[in-house]
Amino acid sequence: MKHYNCRVVVEQLEAAFHPRSIAVVGASGNPSSMGYRYVHHLTNYGYRGQVYPVTPHWSEVLGFEAYPSLENVPGTVDYVICCIPASKVPDLLLECPDKGVKVVHLFTGRFSETGHEDAAKLEEEVLHRAREFGICLIGPNCMGIYYPKGGLAFSYDFPTEPGKLGMFLQSGGAATEFIHYASLRGIRFSKVISYGNALDLNEADFLEYLSQDPETDIIASYIEGIKDGRRFFKALSRASLIKPVIILKAGRGSAGARQAASHTAALAGSLKIWETAIRQAGAIQARTLEELLDLVVCFYFLPPILGAKVGIVGGGGGRSVLSADEWEEAGFDVVPLPPEIKEEIKKTLPELWWDWIRNPVDVSIFPEGALVGNLSGNIVRMMAQSPHFDLIIVNMPLGGPFSITEFVALVSMQVDDIIDMNKKELKPLSMVLNTGNLSINDFDDLRWRCLAEQNAKLISAKVPIYATAVQAANAIIRMMNYYQRKEGIS
Amino acid sequence: MKHYNCRVVVEQLEAAFHPRSIAVVGASGNPSSMGYRYVHHLTNYGYRGQVYPVTPHWSEVLGFEAYPSLENVPGTVDYVICCIPASKVPDLLLECPDKGVKVVHLFTGRFSETGHEDAAKLEEEVLHRAREFGICLIGPNCMGIYYPKGGLAFSYDFPTEPGKLGMFLQSGGAATEFIHYASLRGIRFSKVISYGNALDLNEADFLEYLSQDPETDIIASYIEGIKDGRRFFKALSRASLIKPVIILKAGRGSAGARQAASHTAALAGSLKIWETAIRQAGAIQARTLEELLDLVVCFYFLPPILGAKVGIVGGGGGRSVLSADEWEEAGFDVVPLPPEIKEEIKKTLPELWWDWIRNPVDVSIFPEGALVGNLSGNIVRMMAQSPHFDLIIVNMPLGGPFSITEFVALVSMQVDDIIDMNKKELKPLSMVLNTGNLSINDFDDLRWRCLAEQNAKLISAKVPIYATAVQAANAIIRMMNYYQRKEGIS
Repeated sequence: MKHYNCRVVVEQLEAAFHPRSIAVVGASGNPSSMGYRYVHHLTNYGYRGQVYPVTPHWSEVLGFEAYPSLENVPGTVDYVICCIPASKVPDLLLECPDKGVKVVHLFTGRFSETGHEDAAKLEEEVLHRAREFGICLIGPNCMGIYYPKGGLAFSYDFPTEPGKLGMFLQSGGAATEFIHYASLRGIRFSKVISYGNALDLNEADFLEYLSQDPETDIIASYIEGIKDGRRFFKALSRASLIKPVIILKAGRGSAGARQAASHTAALAGSLKIWETAIRQAGAIQARTLEELLDLVVCFYFLPPILGAKVGIVGGGGGRSVLSADEWEEAGFDVVPLPPEIKEEIKKTLPELWWDWIRNPVDVSIFPEGALVGNLSGNIVRMMAQSPHFDLIIVNMPLGGPFSITEFVALVSMQVDDIIDMNKKELKPLSMVLNTGNLSINDFDDLRWRCLAEQNAKLISAKVPIYATAVQAANAIIRMMNYYQRKEGIS
Repeated sequence: MKHYNCRVVVEQLEAAFHPRSIAVVGASGNPSSMGYRYVHHLTNYGYRGQVYPVTPHWSEVLGFEAYPSLENVPGTVDYVICCIPASKVPDLLLECPDKGVKVVHLFTGRFSETGHEDAAKLEEEVLHRAREFGICLIGPNCMGIYYPKGGLAFSYDFPTEPGKLGMFLQSGGAATEFIHYASLRGIRFSKVISYGNALDLNEADFLEYLSQDPETDIIASYIEGIKDGRRFFKALSRASLIKPVIILKAGRGSAGARQAASHTAALAGSLKIWETAIRQAGAIQARTLEELLDLVVCFYFLPPILGAKVGIVGGGGGRSVLSADEWEEAGFDVVPLPPEIKEEIKKTLPELWWDWIRNPVDVSIFPEGALVGNLSGNIVRMMAQSPHFDLIIVNMPLGGPFSITEFVALVSMQVDDIIDMNKKELKPLSMVLNTGNLSINDFDDLRWRCLAEQNAKLISAKVPIYATAVQAANAIIRMMNYYQRKEGIS
């Protein structure tokens, strides 16, 4: 029996990301089938190689000539997307060697995750056959690959523009959701792999691949269970030296572990061991998809931060008090405003009670003329230029006492100013801006439209934005810890 | 010296909420002044009593005849909104007794919160004079009253429709923000008091008033410091027996306490003492404005929940695993699906691998036909009817593998079904639905529009909605604790 070592996977995965030809086996002309959707995505996302729908039921799918079986396809096939029922997979694999197939993505599910013994046995047989033929498997029970640069995707409405976040996720649903919500926040992707049951290629393979991938600067992952803990955590330590790796471990409690078993047949393992191992490897742990996204946002947009001294500007008095609490509780040092900035404010605006201003800077105590004259922007600039701060946070107000027209004018000016400052890279800078849980009727409301407009401007200017101070602070402090550890500071 | 006891405040506050006439002292025709805005709000929110702008600089403001001083106003004045500089407040108070003024709201700031000794002394003088004349003060340094039913408000674009949440907040900015964000989530208000420095009427007065107020079912508060701890916590214990009281204590750390002192001259006090006292009183503590809102949402929309057994439906496999973790970690019991429901599913759809379904119910394992046939809705209904669950949670999907038209059709049907179920009040039910941090260009995206549409439908059907499972679970478990304590269960 020829046993191909699939563990040295960089070439295999390169083949998966750059196939010259793809066969969608189980293709269909029915728009509500996955066999249709995978063909659709190849054309829709601009895949430029050969596309071969394989199905005995249709003569063509979306304009491509269809073939009754893989062996009927003319020429070689680098990559197979498999949507046929589980029981037919072993026979499909028999046809692969003649076509030169390197990687098979098994969208096909209902293997060991069902908890049925015969399904688990079938899965074993599939693995055995793939190894015998030297074919790599992604999956089964997964969505496969999203590689915008190569025109590969597994769902509708993903960004076509590529970026620098690489991901491997055991759940295709989590991957799809994450991509949608992350793209709202300006995140773009290098390569995403949804890998389900990890029968052949597993989390360690994907991690090793992405850590070497020059298109990937940050790695994020959703894992329910691992196949080889020793190898994975070794790879995690190595990867974390090269780039930040953020891990969301799901299936943490008893209910979650039961659920993970029935989802991807994962053995969830002890949470304590996981947490210790992730920390020791120098990786970053997230506990929810939302937290994973918050962490990605700061690693994606902020330069490394090595100190915890934060300067905060914006919002009224209540927001200033709460900001002080929230940033301090997350581990930041809300230092007093340095005397030279107070002196500078005194010069600019002597009639203001300058010795009353603190950090956080409560802009609601300014006379309105000073606001319109952009005193707050000037203070942000002074803080950004001061060596007393490692990080500047701007709280976006929601209007306070202002009418909507006053608010729109004020906020637009302030946001333009912040974008200008951010371009000059004086200091790491982030914004707290809550665009609100909008209902359809709120789309016509000038306040929410204005916030959505500012959000768009800030995101396209690559300013990291968080809905709440707690989200921002909890993400950024862990980013700081990562870089401090890397620089040997802590 | 006549010393009027202002502590029996129900009548005084009733007068403040139902004044027959209001004088805005420091009124102005300049739209970017508070003296203009307060007059504007009175007309805009439909206040039906007499409005008297008082200003020597304008002969009329927004169509109302203006008077150079309070004594020139014809007839009595129940309530004064004061926007003149701090130094002029003592003289204004001299004119109040003749006009029969009961309550003065001092928007005017720059008293003790500035940290200046002369300002603190002036504040003392104001209090002394008010007590001498038997006049109640709200503030100083605050926004005053929002009472939609009476046409009183302190900012633009607040809901005009009244509701059942009563609030007292030491910060006007926090009040304004909270009202905007809360109204997005369907919350409406009975009475809101922004009370700033609490010179005269203080937190205990407002709490006692709202706990007796028949228009208020839930009380929420933002407090930086208290004037009389003993009295307040006594009042809090009594109030918590009548209705839920949620307290956000701000100024918790050293930076926050410094900030609170300069904001409302509050002595922040020890956090530990606060937390213990709030818990012992049977009130509920929030740590951020967002958490305060999450708590309000469940008290507002859900019936009392006395047990922790949760049934979860919806979303894909990853979301199901994470939901199990997140609800369990918050203290809920993610119980197995009872056999009778499994049996029922087996009957409905024998070809489905019915013994594979668990709680959380991963709807992505259903055949698509079953989804369209609303199997998930039927399972929600069975769970809602089952005595095995105390609470049902529905996770709103974001599209999974579906095209946007498939998604819109599926989701609309499911949401209509949930609204129907919610109407029948079979079981406390909540939804996790993240409408996303939208940028202006996303307003044209069908996916986000669809979620915003569902959000609108669900909110108007009074289904409580949370953006994340963690937010929902952490709020609802504390609500359960409140009712369990009240019923003597824990």
